[in-house]
Amino acid sequence: MSSKKIAGYLVGVSLALSSVALHAEDKVYRLKLAETWGANTPILGDAPKNMAKLAEQMSNGRLQIRIDSANKHKAPLGVFDLVKSGQYDLGHSSSYYWKGKVPNTLYFSSMPFGMMATEQYAWFYQGGGLELMQQVYEPHNLLSFPGGNSDIQMGGWFKNEIRSVEDLQGLKMRIPGFAGEIFAKVGATPTNIPPSELFMSLERGTIDALEWVGPAFDLRMGFHKIAPYYYTAWHEPGSETQFLVNKKVWDDLPADLQVILETAFRVAAFDMYNQAIHENAQSWAKMKAEFPTIQVRDFPPAVLDAMKKANQELLQEQAQQDPLAKTILDSQAEYLSAVRQWTDISLRAYLDTRE
Amino acid sequence: MSSKKIAGYLVGVSLALSSVALHAEDKVYRLKLAETWGANTPILGDAPKNMAKLAEQMSNGRLQIRIDSANKHKAPLGVFDLVKSGQYDLGHSSSYYWKGKVPNTLYFSSMPFGMMATEQYAWFYQGGGLELMQQVYEPHNLLSFPGGNSDIQMGGWFKNEIRSVEDLQGLKMRIPGFAGEIFAKVGATPTNIPPSELFMSLERGTIDALEWVGPAFDLRMGFHKIAPYYYTAWHEPGSETQFLVNKKVWDDLPADLQVILETAFRVAAFDMYNQAIHENAQSWAKMKAEFPTIQVRDFPPAVLDAMKKANQELLQEQAQQDPLAKTILDSQAEYLSAVRQWTDISLRAYLDTRE
Repeated sequence: MSSKKIAGYLVGVSLALSSVALHAEDKVYRLKLAETWGANTPILGDAPKNMAKLAEQMSNGRLQIRIDSANKHKAPLGVFDLVKSGQYDLGHSSSYYWKGKVPNTLYFSSMPFGMMATEQYAWFYQGGGLELMQQVYEPHNLLSFPGGNSDIQMGGWFKNEIRSVEDLQGLKMRIPGFAGEIFAKVGATPTNIPPSELFMSLERGTIDALEWVGPAFDLRMGFHKIAPYYYTAWHEPGSETQFLVNKKVWDDLPADLQVILETAFRVAAFDMYNQAIHENAQSWAKMKAEFPTIQVRDFPPAVLDAMKKANQELLQEQAQQDPLAKTILDSQAEYLSAVRQWTDISLRAYLDTRE
Repeated sequence: MSSKKIAGYLVGVSLALSSVALHAEDKVYRLKLAETWGANTPILGDAPKNMAKLAEQMSNGRLQIRIDSANKHKAPLGVFDLVKSGQYDLGHSSSYYWKGKVPNTLYFSSMPFGMMATEQYAWFYQGGGLELMQQVYEPHNLLSFPGGNSDIQMGGWFKNEIRSVEDLQGLKMRIPGFAGEIFAKVGATPTNIPPSELFMSLERGTIDALEWVGPAFDLRMGFHKIAPYYYTAWHEPGSETQFLVNKKVWDDLPADLQVILETAFRVAAFDMYNQAIHENAQSWAKMKAEFPTIQVRDFPPAVLDAMKKANQELLQEQAQQDPLAKTILDSQAEYLSAVRQWTDISLRAYLDTRE
C-alpha cells in the first residue's frame, strides 16, 4: 500500500522497467536549484545539499544539481516564481512565503494548533496530504514534495510574563504571517522587523516580544540574554519546508531518475527533521547551561483559547472563499482528530508518566 | 554534516564517481531477502516490499530483490544466522530476536523507559547510534540499518486494574524478552504463549494480562473484547526493526547500488513509521467506536518506579559484563537526557496545553 505512496506521481513507472536493465542512456541531466536560504544556512540549507549529493551518487553522476542560494539569485521569497517560470528547475523553500500569491499553499507548512511533524508526515504519505498538495501546485506547472521539517517551533521570547488575554493588548511582537493575524485578532500588535534589527529592537523595547524558530536557530540570535520568558509552542507545531520541481523538467527526466529524485527529496527531508531535533536538543542544553534563569512558560488556558478561536475564525473565512481550501482544511481536521487521540494515549501518556 | 551520515559506510564513494556518468556495467544483481514475518504481514512486511520495489526502480532494474517470508525459509527467529552465513543476502527482522546470541544487538530496537522513535532516529543518524550498531554487527560479517519503526507500543491488556505493586505479585502475563525480565523482578510471573493461543488463554484466565503491540496489530487479535484495561507505554517506546546485509554481498556491489540500497532502506523505514502511526490511529478509532468501555490507564507512579529500578539494575549488570554494552548504554543515556529536555518543553508542552 505505501509503496504506491512512495512512487507518488510515478504510477505506471514499474511497468516501463523490464526485469533486465534497459541500459538507459547515460545522458547527464544538469539541474539548477534555487533555495530561499542564504549560503551555508545550517539545517535548512543542509537539506538541498544532502539531496543533491544523494541524487548524484544514486544516479552514478547522471543527475548533477547546482544549488544557488539567495545571495546569488537575490529572490529569497520568489523561489515559487523562479521555478514556475523555468528560470530554475528545482526549488527549496517554505510554502508560507508565497501564501499571498497562492493562498492554498499555506496549508502544507504547519498549522496553528495543528499536527506535529510525525502526525503531519502520516497525513502527507498515508492520509492523502501529498495528493492535495499536488492539486494546489499543478495549475502552476509545479510539483511539490515535503522538504524537511524544522521541528516544533517555540512560542517566542517575551520580556514580561503573559498571565491573561489583557496582557496581550497592544503588545508589540515580531510575529509574521498567519500567526501574526491571529495575534492581531486577540489584541496584540504584530510587527515585522528585519532579522538583523531584531536583537536591538527587543533590547531597546521597540518590541516586547518576538518569535523566531527554536533553540537551534535562537541560540545564535541571543534573545535569551535579554528576554527571560520562553513560551511553548502553538503556531508552528511542525514546519515542513518544500522541494519544488518544474513540471516540464520533471516530465523530461527518465523514469529511473524521477524515482531517484523523489527518493532523494524524501531522505533529505527525513534527515533534516532528525538534524533539527538533534540541534534543538544540543542548543537548548547550551542555552540553559549559560542562562539558567530562562523561564519556560505555557500560555495560560484563556490565552490559548482566545488564539484558538481566532485561528478557527480565520480558517473558516478561508474555507468559505475557496472550495479547495475547504477540502484541505477538512482533510487536516479529520486526520488530526483521529491521530491526536492515538498520540494522546501513546506518546503523550508516555512522556507524562516518565517523571 | 548529515550528508556524511546518509552515506554512512560509503565514505570515499563520491571520490569514485566522476561528474560524468561512468557508464556502469548493466550487470543485474539478484539478491535474496529473508524476513522474520509471515507472508502478507501488514506494516512489518510492507517495509521490505517497499524497499525492494524502490531499489529496483532506482537502479533501473539492476537490483532485483526476492523476498522470502517465514512461511518459506521456516526460520522466523533465525534471520541473523541466515544472512550471516550467506544463505540469504539480506534480512528484515527485529534485533531482539537474537539477543540470546549477540546480547548487544538488543539496544538497537527499543529500550524500556528509553527514547521514543523520533528521539531514537536522531540518535541513530546524528548522535552516533548507527556507528555503534555497525560496531556490534561487524564481527558477524553483517551490516545493519534501521528498518522501520512500529511506533510506540502499549503496555498491554489487563483484566483487572493495577493499583499498586502488590497487584503485580504473581500476576500471570504474556510479556516476552527483556520487559518480561523486568516484570519478573517486580514480582509478576511472565509467561510466553504462542500467538494463536493468546486470546483463549486470556479469556479463560490462564493469564491475567498480555502485551502485544498497539492498536494496529491488537485490533484483529480482539483482546479488547475480553480485557477492559489498556495500559499505556513503558517498555517499547519506539521499536525499530532492522535491515541486515551480508558484508561480502555489500562489498561486491558497485558504489551506486550501495547508495541506492542504503537509501531504499531509509525510505522504507521512514515509510513504515508513517504507516504504523496511520494504522494505529485508524485502528484505535475503530476499537473505541466498537467498545467504548475500553479503559485507558497509566500504571501508577509506584509501579513505574519499581519497573524503572528493575530496568536500571538489569542494564547495570549488562554494562558490567561487557565494555561495548557500557559504551552503547552510556551513549543512549546521555543522548536521552539531552533530547528529552527538549522534547519536554516542545512536544510534550504542546500536547499538554492543547486540551
